Amino acid sequence: MPANGTETPVPDVPRGLAGVVVTETALGDVRGREGFYHYRQYSAVELAQTRDFEDVWHLMFEGELPDSAARAAFTARTAALRRLPDDVRDVLPAVARLCARSGPLAGLRTALSLFGASAGLSPLYDIDPERRREDALAVCAVVPTLLTALYRLGHGLEPVEPREDLPYAANYLYMLTGTEPEPERARAVEQYLISTIDHGFNASTFAARVIASTGADLAAALVGGIGAFSGPLHGGAPSRALDTLDAIGTPDRIDPWIRERVLAGDRIMGFGHAVYRTEDPRSRMLRGIAEKFGGPRVDFAVQVEAGVEAVLAELKPGRELHTNVEFYAGVVMELCGLPREMFTPTFAAARVVGWSANVLEQAADTKIIRPAARYTGPPPPQPVPAAG
Amino acid sequence: MPANGTETPVPDVPRGLAGVVVTETALGDVRGREGFYHYRQYSAVELAQTRDFEDVWHLMFEGELPDSAARAAFTARTAALRRLPDDVRDVLPAVARLCARSGPLAGLRTALSLFGASAGLSPLYDIDPERRREDALAVCAVVPTLLTALYRLGHGLEPVEPREDLPYAANYLYMLTGTEPEPERARAVEQYLISTIDHGFNASTFAARVIASTGADLAAALVGGIGAFSGPLHGGAPSRALDTLDAIGTPDRIDPWIRERVLAGDRIMGFGHAVYRTEDPRSRMLRGIAEKFGGPRVDFAVQVEAGVEAVLAELKPGRELHTNVEFYAGVVMELCGLPREMFTPTFAAARVVGWSANVLEQAADTKIIRPAARYTGPPPPQPVPAAG
Repeated sequence: MPANGTETPVPDVPRGLAGVVVTETALGDVRGREGFYHYRQYSAVELAQTRDFEDVWHLMFEGELPDSAARAAFTARTAALRRLPDDVRDVLPAVARLCARSGPLAGLRTALSLFGASAGLSPLYDIDPERRREDALAVCAVVPTLLTALYRLGHGLEPVEPREDLPYAANYLYMLTGTEPEPERARAVEQYLISTIDHGFNASTFAARVIASTGADLAAALVGGIGAFSGPLHGGAPSRALDTLDAIGTPDRIDPWIRERVLAGDRIMGFGHAVYRTEDPRSRMLRGIAEKFGGPRVDFAVQVEAGVEAVLAELKPGRELHTNVEFYAGVVMELCGLPREMFTPTFAAARVVGWSANVLEQAADTKIIRPAARYTGPPPPQPVPAAG
Repeated sequence: MPANGTETPVPDVPRGLAGVVVTETALGDVRGREGFYHYRQYSAVELAQTRDFEDVWHLMFEGELPDSAARAAFTARTAALRRLPDDVRDVLPAVARLCARSGPLAGLRTALSLFGASAGLSPLYDIDPERRREDALAVCAVVPTLLTALYRLGHGLEPVEPREDLPYAANYLYMLTGTEPEPERARAVEQYLISTIDHGFNASTFAARVIASTGADLAAALVGGIGAFSGPLHGGAPSRALDTLDAIGTPDRIDPWIRERVLAGDRIMGFGHAVYRTEDPRSRMLRGIAEKFGGPRVDFAVQVEAGVEAVLAELKPGRELHTNVEFYAGVVMELCGLPREMFTPTFAAARVVGWSANVLEQAADTKIIRPAARYTGPPPPQPVPAAG
């Protein structure tokens, strides 16, 4: 039915829709100037410091933190969904082989598309909210299973079956390595995962919501989110921050290395964020986790952070440039034994919960997201020349 | 680097970004009030009536219609890209089996993700425009091969290898049926495909551009576009228009059937469009094609169209409600022997060229599309309650 034309004049908006409010959300927000972000009404960092991953997953999906009975039920319910159907698992060796050149996010994009299709997910607008949440639980629950299976297959190893008795993060590390992780490591990864579940209206979240706004099924929306997340301007790569540490090498090289980069106007990986004007609160939390582990790598990372801030204070006074989530995330994941190629996929294993919560929220709306573009080419219509 | 915060106040925009100009494009436009749309500077309908699919594909990618030498080169180049790599083809039976419940667009989403990953496509921002166009040619060229192979496998048939000596549309029909199509049918499908390559800034095009704006690879963007296209509010289904014809059944039932629907306020499939206030120009062209074929089915469709307009003139005077692209597209595809489940995938086989052209255009920009949302939940921060 006709709803709105494209010819209604509307004020121009900033490039890239920067700062343009496109929808309302009850899921959370990022306050860039305050260095603060929250999930629903709670500080995300505080949640990461005091709660389990499943608690926060429940908060995002159900709107409230679970009490102990609800947590037990939710944990058992999601744990039971981790195992892949045999027919999906049987195809994963081929998917892993074909996606080897393009990396684990292309593998996840493909495998999740396949899993969603095999599950016969219905269009979001054809099912009720309870059924949508069931679909979202099922899809989120298998993401660690898919990621770790693809990783192991890509390295000539057999996938490790999920364990229902382990929490989300511990089971993820277990499936990756085949060994039950030390509690400190599992908890560090869990805190990282909680802190990255959601973060405002970023490009992958927006892509997932645009797709969801057509009423497409959940997998279609998440596959789009993963695709956006794989872009170099977005998901980034915590491993790049470690590359910076490796490139500097030793403490005596910190100052000259940074000075050279800053004077050349080069970007320093692990520093700077599109929204935060202050320290990234995720970075602060992750530095605390890293410092509890301690060791020369952590000391060096802290020295590099201080070096960047000192050089900037001298060469570019007033410029706010702090470590972002990548910097200490890389350090923490390395301390926890995660291989570098799994840093960004691990991020995705948390963010899929945030994308899903956004899709569930979007599905409650029924207005398609369909903006307009201004045609700036040669004026039409020009007669089509006869074929040569 | 910090670029822009979320706290800068920006005027609210209409729900769903309706009419909001988010970017500039030289690819074309839709003029809803005039019932006109164009690709670059040419009438899309005129292109469909006078040109080959490859001509228009060249126009969208290269910015100009090819001369005869350029057309020959482009046609040969794209035809040579139709064949799937063996390792992708070997996985398609499993993909077809797993995607059987979710339909051909979920199959295409998965298979194209797999093809893109296996081709090792680079992030858009890491490669030059020529390389991006090469990737886009390769991906578009295999879409008909993937679609027809999945269809045939789903029906217990062996896929048919592409033929390089046939034009795009004829080869598509050949791979679907195993038989070289009659020229009139191949040309009718070709005209339909040309007319659906692009159509303004719809949700799938926008989703693909949001993903591309992160610098992700071409397959990531197209997979997101396919996902959005699969939503019931977007891609639609030309087969639904035939369902309307079937439901009415006979000419004497046209008037009462439509009257009942209009009085109940029900939507009539195949009628109405979000942008056009006039007849959909694609519908007009497709009716002309259908009428050239002739026959009782076409006569009946024309009677139903007239019946809807007559009932509306009586019951809802002034209401502009015309056939959309679905109505006669369904009739034409049925006349050309396409099975109903392949109507929407056939649409996608054309639109992938439009999405790709949009991705190529977006990749020339380097500004990520990242809007904002307004938090409307309970005020944060509230202290996190201790775990129960």
